[in-house]
Amino acid sequence: MYKLGQTYIEKLFNPGTIAVIGASEKQGTVGRAIMENLLRGFRGEVYPVNVKYETVLGLKCYKGIDELPKTPDLAVVAIPAASTLKVVEELCKLGVRVSIVVSAGFKEIGEDGARLEIELVKRARTCGMRILGPNCLGVYDAWTGVDTIFNPGDRQSKPTPGSVAFLSQSGALGAALLDWLSEAGIGMSKFVSYGNAADIKEWELIEYLAYDGETRIISLYVEGVDNGREFLNSLRKAAAAGKPVVILKGGRTPSGVRAVVSHTGALSSPSEVFLYAVRQAGAIVVDSVSEMVGVLKLFEWFEPPKGRGIAIVTNGGGAGVLAVDATEAEGLRIANLSKETIESLRRALPSAASPLNPVDLLGDAPPERYRAAIDLVINDINVDSVLIITLMQSPAFDPHKFVEQLQDIRSRTTKPMVLVAPGGEYTERHAKIIERKLRIPYFKSPEEAVKALRLSIEWFEKRARGTYYKQVQG
Amino acid sequence: MYKLGQTYIEKLFNPGTIAVIGASEKQGTVGRAIMENLLRGFRGEVYPVNVKYETVLGLKCYKGIDELPKTPDLAVVAIPAASTLKVVEELCKLGVRVSIVVSAGFKEIGEDGARLEIELVKRARTCGMRILGPNCLGVYDAWTGVDTIFNPGDRQSKPTPGSVAFLSQSGALGAALLDWLSEAGIGMSKFVSYGNAADIKEWELIEYLAYDGETRIISLYVEGVDNGREFLNSLRKAAAAGKPVVILKGGRTPSGVRAVVSHTGALSSPSEVFLYAVRQAGAIVVDSVSEMVGVLKLFEWFEPPKGRGIAIVTNGGGAGVLAVDATEAEGLRIANLSKETIESLRRALPSAASPLNPVDLLGDAPPERYRAAIDLVINDINVDSVLIITLMQSPAFDPHKFVEQLQDIRSRTTKPMVLVAPGGEYTERHAKIIERKLRIPYFKSPEEAVKALRLSIEWFEKRARGTYYKQVQG
Repeated sequence: MYKLGQTYIEKLFNPGTIAVIGASEKQGTVGRAIMENLLRGFRGEVYPVNVKYETVLGLKCYKGIDELPKTPDLAVVAIPAASTLKVVEELCKLGVRVSIVVSAGFKEIGEDGARLEIELVKRARTCGMRILGPNCLGVYDAWTGVDTIFNPGDRQSKPTPGSVAFLSQSGALGAALLDWLSEAGIGMSKFVSYGNAADIKEWELIEYLAYDGETRIISLYVEGVDNGREFLNSLRKAAAAGKPVVILKGGRTPSGVRAVVSHTGALSSPSEVFLYAVRQAGAIVVDSVSEMVGVLKLFEWFEPPKGRGIAIVTNGGGAGVLAVDATEAEGLRIANLSKETIESLRRALPSAASPLNPVDLLGDAPPERYRAAIDLVINDINVDSVLIITLMQSPAFDPHKFVEQLQDIRSRTTKPMVLVAPGGEYTERHAKIIERKLRIPYFKSPEEAVKALRLSIEWFEKRARGTYYKQVQG
Repeated sequence: MYKLGQTYIEKLFNPGTIAVIGASEKQGTVGRAIMENLLRGFRGEVYPVNVKYETVLGLKCYKGIDELPKTPDLAVVAIPAASTLKVVEELCKLGVRVSIVVSAGFKEIGEDGARLEIELVKRARTCGMRILGPNCLGVYDAWTGVDTIFNPGDRQSKPTPGSVAFLSQSGALGAALLDWLSEAGIGMSKFVSYGNAADIKEWELIEYLAYDGETRIISLYVEGVDNGREFLNSLRKAAAAGKPVVILKGGRTPSGVRAVVSHTGALSSPSEVFLYAVRQAGAIVVDSVSEMVGVLKLFEWFEPPKGRGIAIVTNGGGAGVLAVDATEAEGLRIANLSKETIESLRRALPSAASPLNPVDLLGDAPPERYRAAIDLVINDINVDSVLIITLMQSPAFDPHKFVEQLQDIRSRTTKPMVLVAPGGEYTERHAKIIERKLRIPYFKSPEEAVKALRLSIEWFEKRARGTYYKQVQG
């Protein structure tokens, strides 16, 4: 259940009708890219608005907002900043409840822009219309096909429908992450680049996502927030709803804070205090975009690990040693396999192999041997997650057969598995295939894999303690 | 100058003639893979030895070692462990000075193997023959074509000739790294998987490489060393020769040390003490395979940065902020650009761009704008290295034109540059092209790029202080 006041946000993601102000046929324009996006995936009605066209991409084009046949649920405004005030007034008059203003040229360019931005919001408030942006890429909803992300399709890929939501204060970084998430095979519910956040704030979006049926995981790139109390409250609500919130904060150091001021002009809070409060509110803080992608894969594809015991299964001793080091360095534990597991491993593996954790299958291990070992350790009660290392340079390792052999185990388990495969082009290509087919997160180094596991375990532990439940307000 | 006693090592890498004991025509055997490798790249003479064949891959095959027409400079032994003693005796009799024993089944399998290994070395010592291995992949010399790395060529790529040497105590991990270095476009001088190090020790190889004309950078995966004093001494010699030594240590934690014992049986020294001493001796310690690859690229392609001032040039503000955070977190510094540079940037860039560091070129920046900005900052005396961020989702960024625009600047500078490009398939593909053509190391996240710069800066600073020069002994 979300508050009644949030129905306007519902229309950002799931409108029946969308008007595109500044729709265009001209190649390379934002107005054309948005139209193409909507015609590709959106199932509702689209009204292009542009005084210059009779039709846009085969649709009747309206000369003015006052000519629209009915009030659209959502308006997308893609026109120069100077013309936005008038357009907002007209949208208001028509009774539009929410608009995405992608136009740049507001607070981010200086004082004149800031004044224009204040005026924009003021005019929208006269009729109760809410605004996302300005200076943003807007919304991508993988389920409904709403898509205002206007980068060219050959270089900007977008994830398939899934359960991860991502909010970004930075448009360009958001787009890069969207692209990365897509390649990583992460399924997405909603993406929002909220830009200057002149009206709709990140905390309103988080609160909406906390109750959103399509979203199980919420992630966020943020440089600063206006209202710390509301922000933390929204995090607590998401936590109380059982949804992990993963945060990458821009401006974690004094120099970073200064860079934020010149980027978004956001008031970046003193970072340690901010991050401490954020963690207290149940969120996970990552230190880089790579880490963000890694932990999102784990959350989308598995239940969080229920404890700190890791089993390592490898066809190379050295890589196993590095994984053990990483496990201890991150504060996790090499699981003590039960006597029964060790005995069964001993029977299943060649005598030179190691049935103790890390389980060393030897360099000549075929996929069948992996299957036997993983099946045993994953069912050991002392094992909370499994780190699989495949050195694919070995002639015995057939990646296709590996997928076949693991499919069964994968479909039966919710216990997290991660795949570590260091190497070159062949390895990378096949590791990505394995990742996609089995939905097992792939990392090039054991250290990255273990860090992702640690972040996801911490979330589970925090949740089990459940301290933030009591703190939810409002 | 290397010691006279090291001439045997010279023959590991640059023999005129090689005998392959256990050469074979049979697909999938080690004996065949090694023969194929040698026929592909080695310019000297190869003598296959196997009682079963008249010829192997078109070469006359010898039934026994005693039939060889002359004493080979190097023998490669690829036969079952049980037969190695007799072969070593025969090689001794013939006067062979150095052999690579790739055969497994020695110390790594337990007590029986350990006894066999001691006996193997004892017999070789009777005639002064040196042995690399056993239980190893052996040698890959990119310059001479000596190549005993017997993984299949479709899944195991090998670097082109260059200046990075890599030594690995672990064969499988070494092979994975060899593959990874190759894909990263790093040029290699020599690769050695030295296995059980029954006779030839890692420190002898390091000492050899310290004086090797083809090697400028030495890297090493090591789990334990027999002789700490000699090991540290070899590191000091490499440092005194002006060559960075980059070390990845397996067994840095108590659990890791235990894992090492069951992997190579090496005596892993208490880690903090070991790593402290290693750093004191001028070496760089990395925490993961990824870090190793990153810092090796920097060392091969550039001079180390002469200081801690970084200039950041980006087409996205958010990614710039993250790079600033990483810079400060790693103890580096956002360079203060000179007034002249700032003034020139102001003239060269659009008014909405930021001419201050981080230099924000804006989302619509074409490669020409990158060129103008990079050319200015790289020539600023306050700038020691340049971190370039390209969000390639932007329609204005043409990666091919970027290569053209940067080629000039790249060819004129030895000041380090790194490329950060987060994103999906399109970005990865083009970033790899840029990396190869311009030899600018590519990282997906700013944090990884900054860490590589920090490691390389630390080496330079240590070298400038030059404390370890005085400590060189012997």
